[in-house]
Amino acid sequence: MSAPTVAAPATPAAVTLRPPVETGGDGPLPVLGADVRVPAGAGTRTYAALDYAASAPVLRRVWEDVAEYAPWYGSVHRGAGHLSQLSTDLFERSRATVADFLGCRPDDDVVFTRSTTDSLALLAAVLPAGTRVFVFASEHHAVLLPWRGRAVTWLDVPRSPQEAVALLDHALDGAPEGPKLVCVTGASNVTGELWPVAELAAVAHRHGARIALDAAQLAPHHPVDIGALDVDYAAFSGHKLYAPFGAGVLAGRADWLREAEPYLAGGGASRSVVRGADGTVGARWHTSAARHEAGSPNVIGAYAIASACRALTEAGADRLVAREQRLLDRLRAGLARLPQVRVLSLFGADAPRVGVVSFTVSGWSCREFATALADEYGIGVRDGLFCAHPLLRALLGADAVAPGACGGAPEEGELGAVRVSFGAGTPCGHIDRFLTAAEELLRRGPSRC
Amino acid sequence: MSAPTVAAPATPAAVTLRPPVETGGDGPLPVLGADVRVPAGAGTRTYAALDYAASAPVLRRVWEDVAEYAPWYGSVHRGAGHLSQLSTDLFERSRATVADFLGCRPDDDVVFTRSTTDSLALLAAVLPAGTRVFVFASEHHAVLLPWRGRAVTWLDVPRSPQEAVALLDHALDGAPEGPKLVCVTGASNVTGELWPVAELAAVAHRHGARIALDAAQLAPHHPVDIGALDVDYAAFSGHKLYAPFGAGVLAGRADWLREAEPYLAGGGASRSVVRGADGTVGARWHTSAARHEAGSPNVIGAYAIASACRALTEAGADRLVAREQRLLDRLRAGLARLPQVRVLSLFGADAPRVGVVSFTVSGWSCREFATALADEYGIGVRDGLFCAHPLLRALLGADAVAPGACGGAPEEGELGAVRVSFGAGTPCGHIDRFLTAAEELLRRGPSRC
Repeated sequence: MSAPTVAAPATPAAVTLRPPVETGGDGPLPVLGADVRVPAGAGTRTYAALDYAASAPVLRRVWEDVAEYAPWYGSVHRGAGHLSQLSTDLFERSRATVADFLGCRPDDDVVFTRSTTDSLALLAAVLPAGTRVFVFASEHHAVLLPWRGRAVTWLDVPRSPQEAVALLDHALDGAPEGPKLVCVTGASNVTGELWPVAELAAVAHRHGARIALDAAQLAPHHPVDIGALDVDYAAFSGHKLYAPFGAGVLAGRADWLREAEPYLAGGGASRSVVRGADGTVGARWHTSAARHEAGSPNVIGAYAIASACRALTEAGADRLVAREQRLLDRLRAGLARLPQVRVLSLFGADAPRVGVVSFTVSGWSCREFATALADEYGIGVRDGLFCAHPLLRALLGADAVAPGACGGAPEEGELGAVRVSFGAGTPCGHIDRFLTAAEELLRRGPSRC
Repeated sequence: MSAPTVAAPATPAAVTLRPPVETGGDGPLPVLGADVRVPAGAGTRTYAALDYAASAPVLRRVWEDVAEYAPWYGSVHRGAGHLSQLSTDLFERSRATVADFLGCRPDDDVVFTRSTTDSLALLAAVLPAGTRVFVFASEHHAVLLPWRGRAVTWLDVPRSPQEAVALLDHALDGAPEGPKLVCVTGASNVTGELWPVAELAAVAHRHGARIALDAAQLAPHHPVDIGALDVDYAAFSGHKLYAPFGAGVLAGRADWLREAEPYLAGGGASRSVVRGADGTVGARWHTSAARHEAGSPNVIGAYAIASACRALTEAGADRLVAREQRLLDRLRAGLARLPQVRVLSLFGADAPRVGVVSFTVSGWSCREFATALADEYGIGVRDGLFCAHPLLRALLGADAVAPGACGGAPEEGELGAVRVSFGAGTPCGHIDRFLTAAEELLRRGPSRC
């Protein structure tokens, strides 16, 4: 391992992230795994990762940053040694980098969690007593499920951005007094469609509600600016942002976060712990982000996220979005030539979207089609209901009970759709490989029974 | 990156961990960072990491396993592609490796969490209604604090293992009917002393209570066998076990885990989610470990832990324990020659212990001494109250309010002790460097004011 730029024999103040990444024209950003070979038919092929919406490959730049840092790893917020000081500095700088990446306001907190799911569970835990939550039934389970013990107003699945705004407006109109939170996705993990976040935020605020943005699928594809969108919170996962080292983020308004009981109770969150005269043990808690980060922070995970934020920023959001749109156009045009394919959409063909496309294939169960792509062509896609069961049921309608393999009743794993998703590391050739494979499979038909 | 043994062009069934590590005689296990140079006095020195109890360096073997796997990273429990299948297999094999490492019973569950703190918070969350918890006031905050909303019986700080057993016996004797849980550390993060876990477990079970073992400080130093100790649960952190990639473990009895509400609610934990006729959304949950692992699992973190378990097992627990004891004897003998040093102990000088030693230094605040070791000698130790405030106050007595720097009133950071901790990656030379530095500092006195 060569001498790292993250450290030195210098002081912790010298900790820096690496210089700007060079991407070489308009190609994909370098990712790990671009050259791994997997079984495909009778031979092997390089793996075509088209399941970015589940988890993206590691950006090479992220890996290199983590590899440089790893020998300098030390405990965070603990220890007098140089590596502990350096690691603490790196952790807090990572927090600042994420705040920049999200366009946070000066008084926002950035809490490192384990994932978007964890971030939204944290948000659910810090809501003031009596908060009513407003959620569309079309959301990912991470948005649908964390509000246990809270009053939830369930909004119908809208069929246009305008309808989404109107549904929210109507629901908030009739809502009782008290604190209110709207939680909404930025980009659908099923259709890739962008939600009208700024418009929903304006409606929420007009009614005195706060709004949280599930940016898990948005952040890897599109700039997220908390301030410009005027959302109160945003959450995303490192592993969908090319940094799969067990960390995620919740960023936003500090007040509820700082007033609530700690999400995790333990060392790091506690400022002092005392056994009282009555024998019981009580704690005073930190009021910074550390309040919700008990236990030793995952500094590698946080630094990896910061590295990804920096790499995406430096590569240029406009360029990455434009490139992804070209791949998306190519994919959608190719799918449109296949009459057996029905692309799923809530908001219609013209709605803006990111590189996530789900579809059904007439005559195939989703499992059969995805498995054939994997086994015969070395292409990795996702099939099923994508942790968004109510949305899939709404989108699929009768197709949800399409025949299973061999024409029998469908098993649970056979319900759903096929999803192709990609991002900054995807070469154009992977889209073409997928389209060629899909055409061949459709010509041939399922090799069942 | 050379072709990994974790994958192939073979099938997922070919996923294996690497061959046994060669450690070369009786030296330390290779760790990252052994050669990093840090500021020390007017020059630089290689860093002496003596803060293993806070966080241990990465085992080189763990790093190599993670680096081999990283290009093959894929989503777990999601996706039909080869890398998703391989990653799912690796994740579940990692679970099995951890179960072996801990000597789990066939019907135990192993849940991947983010840390020991998170593991104990999970355990607190799954306790049946009405469970009373029994905790010694001498515990780490991770054991003291997670029981919010539960009835807790606080046990006094015992001054011998026998007293610990008697205190628990007495408390359980007088306890009301209903489910009961004892939670106890295996090795103190302050004194390094081993707790009489098997004896406490026997007492707990005689009274119909369950017992959970905080193995955060035990597992890196000592074999942990859930079955042999007859504990019901064990928790530990990857980052103290040479695998700092954001994961931890809770292992133990499956029944409470499977019957409780999911710890995190979201995708992965939910088997099906349906919007009912009344418009509300409800979930059916998995009953396996996945019930508590919502969100995409941290496969790199879990695999890193499994790699560390394998490496420690293959290096030989007996050999590692014996080697650490020699270093510990050397350290304690050296400290005994320094009359200004008072080593902290609950159970006395002869109590069995691991490589964790805390002490106060007459005439120095802990912060001054630790900072001098770092700045002048490149040695990283920890100072303070070690997330075990009540224990430190009990151990320090009057020393807890020793004069601060420059003879003034002590500031918050100046209270406490200095802790030297080490493990399988520590060369004997680091112990000697520390002892030489301590002697020099004590000869010279604090350079304050």
